[in-house]
Amino acid sequence: MKKFYIAKSRRLRSTPYTSRIENQGVTAYTVYNHMLLPASFGNLEKEYFHLKKHVQVWDVAAERQVQIMGKDSSKLVQLMTCRNLSKAKIGRCYYAPIIDEQGGTLNDPVALKLEEDKWWLSLADSDVGLYAKGIASGLSLQVEITEPDVNILAVQGPKSFKLMEKVLGKKITELKFFGFDHYSFKGNKFLVARSGWSKQGGYEVYVENSEAGKNLYDELFLAGKEFQVEPGCPNLIERIESALLSAGNDFDSTDNPYECGFDKYIDIDSDINYLGKKALIKISKEGINRKLMRVLIDIDKIEVTDGMPLYNNNKVAGELRSATYSPNLKKVVGVAMVKKEYWDKKNPIELKIGDKKRKGTLCDLPIV
Amino acid sequence: MKKFYIAKSRRLRSTPYTSRIENQGVTAYTVYNHMLLPASFGNLEKEYFHLKKHVQVWDVAAERQVQIMGKDSSKLVQLMTCRNLSKAKIGRCYYAPIIDEQGGTLNDPVALKLEEDKWWLSLADSDVGLYAKGIASGLSLQVEITEPDVNILAVQGPKSFKLMEKVLGKKITELKFFGFDHYSFKGNKFLVARSGWSKQGGYEVYVENSEAGKNLYDELFLAGKEFQVEPGCPNLIERIESALLSAGNDFDSTDNPYECGFDKYIDIDSDINYLGKKALIKISKEGINRKLMRVLIDIDKIEVTDGMPLYNNNKVAGELRSATYSPNLKKVVGVAMVKKEYWDKKNPIELKIGDKKRKGTLCDLPIV
Repeated sequence: MKKFYIAKSRRLRSTPYTSRIENQGVTAYTVYNHMLLPASFGNLEKEYFHLKKHVQVWDVAAERQVQIMGKDSSKLVQLMTCRNLSKAKIGRCYYAPIIDEQGGTLNDPVALKLEEDKWWLSLADSDVGLYAKGIASGLSLQVEITEPDVNILAVQGPKSFKLMEKVLGKKITELKFFGFDHYSFKGNKFLVARSGWSKQGGYEVYVENSEAGKNLYDELFLAGKEFQVEPGCPNLIERIESALLSAGNDFDSTDNPYECGFDKYIDIDSDINYLGKKALIKISKEGINRKLMRVLIDIDKIEVTDGMPLYNNNKVAGELRSATYSPNLKKVVGVAMVKKEYWDKKNPIELKIGDKKRKGTLCDLPIV
Repeated sequence: MKKFYIAKSRRLRSTPYTSRIENQGVTAYTVYNHMLLPASFGNLEKEYFHLKKHVQVWDVAAERQVQIMGKDSSKLVQLMTCRNLSKAKIGRCYYAPIIDEQGGTLNDPVALKLEEDKWWLSLADSDVGLYAKGIASGLSLQVEITEPDVNILAVQGPKSFKLMEKVLGKKITELKFFGFDHYSFKGNKFLVARSGWSKQGGYEVYVENSEAGKNLYDELFLAGKEFQVEPGCPNLIERIESALLSAGNDFDSTDNPYECGFDKYIDIDSDINYLGKKALIKISKEGINRKLMRVLIDIDKIEVTDGMPLYNNNKVAGELRSATYSPNLKKVVGVAMVKKEYWDKKNPIELKIGDKKRKGTLCDLPIV
């Protein structure tokens, strides 16, 4: 498929690491929260195999933070998400879908409770900070909402544990999945979470001091030589194989969290208060008529740049939203929103590419 | 400077015209409101001269609309902007900076009053719809906030008037600047405004029926042959020469509207109610310490991908935010946020490029 350049400008913000990844051979960007997010270093498949075997350092500064501080901060965070955060603990990460009053899914950040009255929402791609500001103004909440200058470095892959232990010390090996704590490097403290946008294991370093972060970036490559460290980025193949959903790709504000399979992050039974709760109670009672599923198609390449209809007997059965060729499965794997009539996995589906029909099958999606 | 590809995906939404502009030779995109916005067809300078002489058709579907309907719609629109819209008329466009409670500038849309209780905000690049949803939920306003499937085609350039008259009829020549009305083409009605993101004159067609819009797109090229019509896009050179400010490039939420020079769109004296009014009253009393100015530098090329410091006697005098080589002025022209101490136009400024210092001058910015 034809390739196009990205027109860079201040509006598509660079990160503290941009000059480094450009020296290291990044070839493609996407834009995420008004910021450059690397998308490839030239060979997605090679990067995929490397990520599953070794360790990579990623510039994911585009995962911007909404910082919510103040007396009403917990109230505001809860108002925005259908997940019950009333028992949230300092030092833990919470996958927390953001919902609007109609029950639409606006974003799926990881919420970090930093202090009793201080939260970060580590965002997918939409301006949740504006949503927070609007609610806070409307309700006259006592909060301060900012986008702090936090620029995340992710260290991902099976050897990330050894590399991070070498650089930040043995204590980091005690960090549990979706836990976070502070670790020192050359006199600077870094908030490190055991998280990241791959299923290969690893960490995300929430860098608050850009200069110190750049030093850490360089050290990870120096110390990482013995672990075959490479620069990388969220890998399309790995993320779809691992069924890590992508807001804006796999779902958007026209989809409710039940349709996305986020059931276990939805609380409609307790007395917590959030926007969209009424809508979700109604949806829960009525049931959903479509849901996200995994698709497998017997072809050896695909590029999805827009929703593509999936057919069953020439009727539209759903919409393919993300897909990639999986070198593991030797077929194309994708994520699709599928109508209820076609949920039975025995239903074959078809994708039209040009004037050819390609056969595929559906299966359930393992959700994060 | 090194070029990078854009990694396309459903999240960077295509427009109804994407396949057309790709056939017509678009080479670069930017991303704007989570959508592809063409940035070049291969030769920015050639496109610049063409735009100033002939007529171009632009895919600016990325100028997304926030539609606000319902009993409280005018109240909500007013709550978001510092411009007094209490006397706004149906059929008129209003440049209306969106302000947060701290007085920061979140966006600078054109507001269209469609009906007594129906507005569109034709956005620059940020999710103002989420801000609107937050305020509406917080205040329990009776409004419905959506992003309608409106995909703007702009027809820009001195010959746009002749072309639009040929395609939509003589009545369109009566449309005044920043007015809008409905016009028919092959049985479909189109909302057309006399507006657009150039100073070369022209129209924006708010296409609500994509199929009809694609037919109109094709007709504009057929009928436009005699006017040397070409595909185009907002042109970096023309927009900076014309001092059309770009949200996210020239200003962002950390800048207040006085600093941006939006004084004539700020009402702090009447009894209208908007978020940030208190903050703006305070700023107005205290005065500002920096403002956007135009910069001229004696060099023959530049690429600004991040804010660049401007110096005066080795002290930081401001930040260059957008710039381009102007074939007209035979020098680089840019937009910078300049500290008050350096507003006097006699102050020379310097820009460091590599290890070279380049001399420049400041002047006032004609604001839209």
